[in-house]
Amino acid sequence: MTSKTSREEEKNISLPSEEYSLIDTAEIIITGNEIISGKTQDTNSRFLARELRKIGITVHYISTVSDDPQDLYEAAKLAYSRSDLIISSGGLGPTEDDVTMEVMCRAAGLNLQLDADCLATIEAYFARTKRKCAPNNRKQAYMPQGARILKNHFGTAPGAFVHFDYLGKPRHLALLPGPPGELVPMFTDSLKPVLKELSPHRYRTHSFRVYGLGESNIEMLLLDLIKENKGINLATYASSYEVEVLVSEVISDRQDNGALFQNYVETIRRRLKHFIFTEKEETLAQRVLDLLIQREYTIAFAESCTAGLLSSLIGSVPGASKAFFGSVISYNNDIKEKFLKVDSGILEHFGAVSRETALAMADGARESFQTDFSVSITGIAGPSGASPEKPVGTVWIGLVSPTVREAFRFQFSGERKRIQERAAFRALDLIRRALENWPLAEKEE
Amino acid sequence: MTSKTSREEEKNISLPSEEYSLIDTAEIIITGNEIISGKTQDTNSRFLARELRKIGITVHYISTVSDDPQDLYEAAKLAYSRSDLIISSGGLGPTEDDVTMEVMCRAAGLNLQLDADCLATIEAYFARTKRKCAPNNRKQAYMPQGARILKNHFGTAPGAFVHFDYLGKPRHLALLPGPPGELVPMFTDSLKPVLKELSPHRYRTHSFRVYGLGESNIEMLLLDLIKENKGINLATYASSYEVEVLVSEVISDRQDNGALFQNYVETIRRRLKHFIFTEKEETLAQRVLDLLIQREYTIAFAESCTAGLLSSLIGSVPGASKAFFGSVISYNNDIKEKFLKVDSGILEHFGAVSRETALAMADGARESFQTDFSVSITGIAGPSGASPEKPVGTVWIGLVSPTVREAFRFQFSGERKRIQERAAFRALDLIRRALENWPLAEKEE
Repeated sequence: MTSKTSREEEKNISLPSEEYSLIDTAEIIITGNEIISGKTQDTNSRFLARELRKIGITVHYISTVSDDPQDLYEAAKLAYSRSDLIISSGGLGPTEDDVTMEVMCRAAGLNLQLDADCLATIEAYFARTKRKCAPNNRKQAYMPQGARILKNHFGTAPGAFVHFDYLGKPRHLALLPGPPGELVPMFTDSLKPVLKELSPHRYRTHSFRVYGLGESNIEMLLLDLIKENKGINLATYASSYEVEVLVSEVISDRQDNGALFQNYVETIRRRLKHFIFTEKEETLAQRVLDLLIQREYTIAFAESCTAGLLSSLIGSVPGASKAFFGSVISYNNDIKEKFLKVDSGILEHFGAVSRETALAMADGARESFQTDFSVSITGIAGPSGASPEKPVGTVWIGLVSPTVREAFRFQFSGERKRIQERAAFRALDLIRRALENWPLAEKEE
Repeated sequence: MTSKTSREEEKNISLPSEEYSLIDTAEIIITGNEIISGKTQDTNSRFLARELRKIGITVHYISTVSDDPQDLYEAAKLAYSRSDLIISSGGLGPTEDDVTMEVMCRAAGLNLQLDADCLATIEAYFARTKRKCAPNNRKQAYMPQGARILKNHFGTAPGAFVHFDYLGKPRHLALLPGPPGELVPMFTDSLKPVLKELSPHRYRTHSFRVYGLGESNIEMLLLDLIKENKGINLATYASSYEVEVLVSEVISDRQDNGALFQNYVETIRRRLKHFIFTEKEETLAQRVLDLLIQREYTIAFAESCTAGLLSSLIGSVPGASKAFFGSVISYNNDIKEKFLKVDSGILEHFGAVSRETALAMADGARESFQTDFSVSITGIAGPSGASPEKPVGTVWIGLVSPTVREAFRFQFSGERKRIQERAAFRALDLIRRALENWPLAEKEE
């Protein structure tokens, strides 16, 4: 489907894709004073590098330069001299310091010309939003000769993808807007399918999202596969609370039916078992909500040390109210007694951070909200409130469902916020495991 | 104090600082396959650019390269040819692909030699953590000749700051480790004070943190000051929910007592009024908690559409339990009636998203938790649940205190998560304004 679409798009450029040289090396140029001065955090280069890698193109350089035309001109020349594909981000706006299109094309020896379609689109955008189209905005309709126009559905600046010769070498240049909300969809929808065709490699990929195992643990579990080196590549990408395991393979032989690749995928699935929370593009909270809705279960929370973080993670997923009824956040014992019916004897005898209190809180939430599932979190997020038996990071998580009534003790490390986050994500994962009938057992992280 | 310390440190390098050339242009080189492949988000370059700017040094280029020695060598040569100060981040570890120290110094014509102090520190680190010091780790004790050693209190790799001539031009090179947890303190504690001395400019700065006004609004309010151009610079730095207004001035004349600067600061304070939530290094949630504790007030929340986000923002601040008692998160009307005593007549007549329900929820929370203050949030975070009169983004925030009982309607834009965040931050700001006796009035954003 994707390849069909991109072939159809291909017709828009003057030459058929077969005549274009393939891309071996790539380079990213990030422009803008707001980036070079540290005002804004650049996230585009990471996004582009990662996405390019997925289609078999490796980025070798990322250069960040100011809006100064001379600096940009030199960066462009250098990039053209050493890389097959150059992608720029930023500087396509209507103001005077938006010079990327003009400077990058001048350095490439490409002329700009007014694109009637672009101009019409820009004028329609202003008409629709009832604003006046300033002469400046017409500037955004000047495009390099022979370029494929990349439509911008989230702003006025169109992007461009163009091919040229630089000192006898074939080069590909993509000019993208700076705001990630414009760059990401433009790259994904319009540029990536074409680049995929120009990548010297055809790829087969599969992605696992893992919770509860670090990158080094995953590497240990998959060491033989990593070392085997039969052309199948395993890469791990760690972000805050998950690790993505990306399996990829270059398809070099048209006869290759992917049997070996499938074998790898199944082996990884078998080894990482219940640590895999999804094989789709979704977060842990999305996965949990999805499972609850699928199985027609409802849930409520009783949070103490996490102060609403678990609730807000579930609550941020669209459609949360289908399964999530509500929570009580009890920052003191009175509330635990009043709203969650935690017996004062339990609090006195075992303390607020204990198995018994965690279970009583979960019972109370389930009863009050009349839900199928409930989860409680009570612990010491720090920096104060610790004791020798219960150091900072001690957290009890209680889980009650129609079939389970258990509480687990964890010892999380880090600062207050980190401990709260670890506890909330761990609770989400416990719910997922309970819903998928996995063991709930690992108690350390 | 700072300047005294840095003068004392100055003695450690072979030449007195007066003999070093001042820094006009700076460049950052980020190394590492994990960055160039998109595995890890680089945040060091933004941090360094921003910090350097604060001491009057402007970054012109940021280059990101892989661990390939040839790529790094060329990036180093290019940087030495065009910038006075070059700061590298990453590649100081013990493994084979950690080549930054060796390659950057080779490109600079600097020899490495074993530093006895560094070696002792590394060996002591391993002894303390009861691990074996591998021969690889000795590599980390090789330092450029004549370098000032920058101690690493959070890892094994020391940094270095060294001066050399490159094609007849004086250059400064700082080699810093890649992990932000090591780079940030090393830069702040050891490098920044020295760079400050080498900066051609002496600076005076003052910072305001603003909530509720965008960068363009702030610029409009301060336009005459921005244009006046009496040597006082105003820069705005927008992050998720606040804008930092940084006022800075080069102190060129020793007679200058800062009277004009003080005048600017006071004018800005007068113009931005209650939009300034702090003039210190703290978040809005910290400020709110601080005010509550100072004034000995307690608070509780009733959250509906924000699902615990407001609670978790306050709850993530150390010491939150001194003022924050708890919350009820009511994702359905039953809970609003049961826990918050919202009259079913109010819900039926006015609906869950209304002034009346917001006030009743806040009353209920204040009563249940027996606090001085309470805040309620009820709205339509989307994507579903909207009606023509109450589109997605309609949010009512109720505030009840010993002296105030009011509710405000807001219309927030964006996706579900963004609406939830805007509502939670707006609620925090309402509390701050109530505590500081500012008008609560602005109703749009």
